[in-house]
Amino acid sequence: MPPILATLRAKKPLVHHITNWVTIYDCANATRAIGALPVMAHAPEEVEQMSGISSALVLNIGTLTPALVDAMLLAGKSANAKKIPIVLDAVGAGATDLRTKKALELIEKLEIGIIKGNAGEIAILAGASAEVKGVESMGVEGDIKEIAQKLSETTGAVVVATGAEDFVVDAKANLTYTIRNGHERMGSVVGTGCVSASIIGSFAAVEPNLAHAAAAALCCFGIAGELASLNEHARGPGTYLHTLIDELSLLDAAKIKEMQKVE
Amino acid sequence: MPPILATLRAKKPLVHHITNWVTIYDCANATRAIGALPVMAHAPEEVEQMSGISSALVLNIGTLTPALVDAMLLAGKSANAKKIPIVLDAVGAGATDLRTKKALELIEKLEIGIIKGNAGEIAILAGASAEVKGVESMGVEGDIKEIAQKLSETTGAVVVATGAEDFVVDAKANLTYTIRNGHERMGSVVGTGCVSASIIGSFAAVEPNLAHAAAAALCCFGIAGELASLNEHARGPGTYLHTLIDELSLLDAAKIKEMQKVE
Amino acid sequence: MPPILATLRAKKPLVHHITNWVTIYDCANATRAIGALPVMAHAPEEVEQMSGISSALVLNIGTLTPALVDAMLLAGKSANAKKIPIVLDAVGAGATDLRTKKALELIEKLEIGIIKGNAGEIAILAGASAEVKGVESMGVEGDIKEIAQKLSETTGAVVVATGAEDFVVDAKANLTYTIRNGHERMGSVVGTGCVSASIIGSFAAVEPNLAHAAAAALCCFGIAGELASLNEHARGPGTYLHTLIDELSLLDAAKIKEMQKVE
Repeated sequence: MPPILATLRAKKPLVHHITNWVTIYDCANATRAIGALPVMAHAPEEVEQMSGISSALVLNIGTLTPALVDAMLLAGKSANAKKIPIVLDAVGAGATDLRTKKALELIEKLEIGIIKGNAGEIAILAGASAEVKGVESMGVEGDIKEIAQKLSETTGAVVVATGAEDFVVDAKANLTYTIRNGHERMGSVVGTGCVSASIIGSFAAVEPNLAHAAAAALCCFGIAGELASLNEHARGPGTYLHTLIDELSLLDAAKIKEMQKVE
Repeated sequence: MPPILATLRAKKPLVHHITNWVTIYDCANATRAIGALPVMAHAPEEVEQMSGISSALVLNIGTLTPALVDAMLLAGKSANAKKIPIVLDAVGAGATDLRTKKALELIEKLEIGIIKGNAGEIAILAGASAEVKGVESMGVEGDIKEIAQKLSETTGAVVVATGAEDFVVDAKANLTYTIRNGHERMGSVVGTGCVSASIIGSFAAVEPNLAHAAAAALCCFGIAGELASLNEHARGPGTYLHTLIDELSLLDAAKIKEMQKVE
Repeated sequence: MPPILATLRAKKPLVHHITNWVTIYDCANATRAIGALPVMAHAPEEVEQMSGISSALVLNIGTLTPALVDAMLLAGKSANAKKIPIVLDAVGAGATDLRTKKALELIEKLEIGIIKGNAGEIAILAGASAEVKGVESMGVEGDIKEIAQKLSETTGAVVVATGAEDFVVDAKANLTYTIRNGHERMGSVVGTGCVSASIIGSFAAVEPNLAHAAAAALCCFGIAGELASLNEHARGPGTYLHTLIDELSLLDAAKIKEMQKVE
């Protein structure tokens, strides 16, 4: 894996987010911790210009409204025109019709570089059967790797399905990565999913091969989660994510080399 | 007190929130920490469906707008139709006319299961005299327990008045609980009030006796606050709430049995 | 410097914020930590009344929309009528036309007591050349102290330009303060800028000399940042700001006297 993190920290790319109101602070802070510069902006009057000065755009539908999705479309068109990558985090797709419909609309109307979700969300977007309870995946019919492959084929996007193992599939390039970094505690804290999309966006801002970028980002994020789980002061979900963000800022090539589990 | 917490952790109920933008992350994270699944969704286009798949609905007017209250009404009608409990946290009622009026409108138009507020907010909703400074209760004319009793009588809801002691009143069932758990530091941190409403909603999602649910939730929340106050690393309000949320996740029957102060 | 902090803690002034959705929790919590009472309210239907019962108004355009700025104008008119100070944090002015235009509109239509920004934002508002990347100042043409002086002259406001050194300029009173408190880690965490505006608003709520208020606030904020940097548990940006907020609550006259670096 190329030294994307070093490039990221040297370039400090601006990563424009249109995201949800729940985890917006942690997304911004984690983006900063890994070495990029976050900016959160959702007014239709400025999103095109903000994406125009950015190096990546992260769209997250966690607390979507139709008006917010319209702003995402404006920003996305600007990102596409400037040829900067878009990461879509399809939070809660499958839980309500609105989320499914709007996620599909974003995929249809924009050239999304990376579609990211948990197994249930990715399955729903691929037209497979799955249960999504709020923002939680409760189970998928079929093999998630094959489902992600299918979604990548039909959309042309790199597809990221997160879970105990994370899968990154780029059907066009015939690439699949399995990332085995991470810790089970990451699944019991609100915000790890959203934050991982911000880290993916930060890596994609400096690495044109988006499958590489996503795999490297998830590897780093998982390692930070493992290191945070070793911190005896992070006793529960109230302090764990903040400790993980600390670890993101402290990551270096040596830790990554020693701990990475990417195939 | 029945082992509601064990039931909650086994069932992992979905708790739909329409809440404020200040404490939304901590409400979600605390809901997860206690063992339920939070989902935050406020678009009018999806709130009915989201409440329809949930086991409780938490409404919090901390940063209300009339449009947000309209979404609350839609979600609330759906919750009433599905017969899942609604918890209303009347943040700032009494501070402005809008907050008082909209809280009363929600109580009038919906069947609210549990109305929760600090002494000032509850007094205002009951038509008593009180001063609310922003979101802070500065004093109430009369006995808050009697005022809560009156509000429970007129609305049919369980009424929760929080403070140094918390009171839970169910006039219909002729039940009153006094909860003496908690720590004075909880009153000097932003978000404890909102988070306690999320915990009440999580308990109400699995316990049909709403007065029991509220009392058990406040007892657990108070115990977590006491335990957090013993943590030497939680030196101030910047780290205290996160430590409290850690403690929510670590609560067990033994701690509750030993520490509970509920009458 | 007069004992503004003691006055603040005795009076517990209400500080009304209309702010961004990224750092809104930390702004509220820090306001509480220093000893004031925060309230966050942005509905046009209540902002005039809320400012009317408050002792200061903090406006922050970090995630502005035109509608939110309209609410700021309503609140600001009410604040001006009641003669309570307004603090404007011009987050991202210069990054997009919307931010620059709306910041200037607020300055033109309201009597702003304190205009605060990083060097780039202040320079843009003064009509000087600067680069603002998202919400980050990337460099200014000319001397920021002179630029701040110019902006104070043309607007009549106290101007605060933050950075490695913070400058407070009151052209009318011919006062300039340089605050050398603070720690470099404060610049690598999301939210320190916004939080410092909340602290300035809290001090301005009790101290009529706004240049004194701003300088004292920045001194206290910087000292808290220095103390937080000594805490071995605050290993990175995930925990640093919370530790800083802890230190705000623990500040006392002795620490301030020993550590202050204000000229």
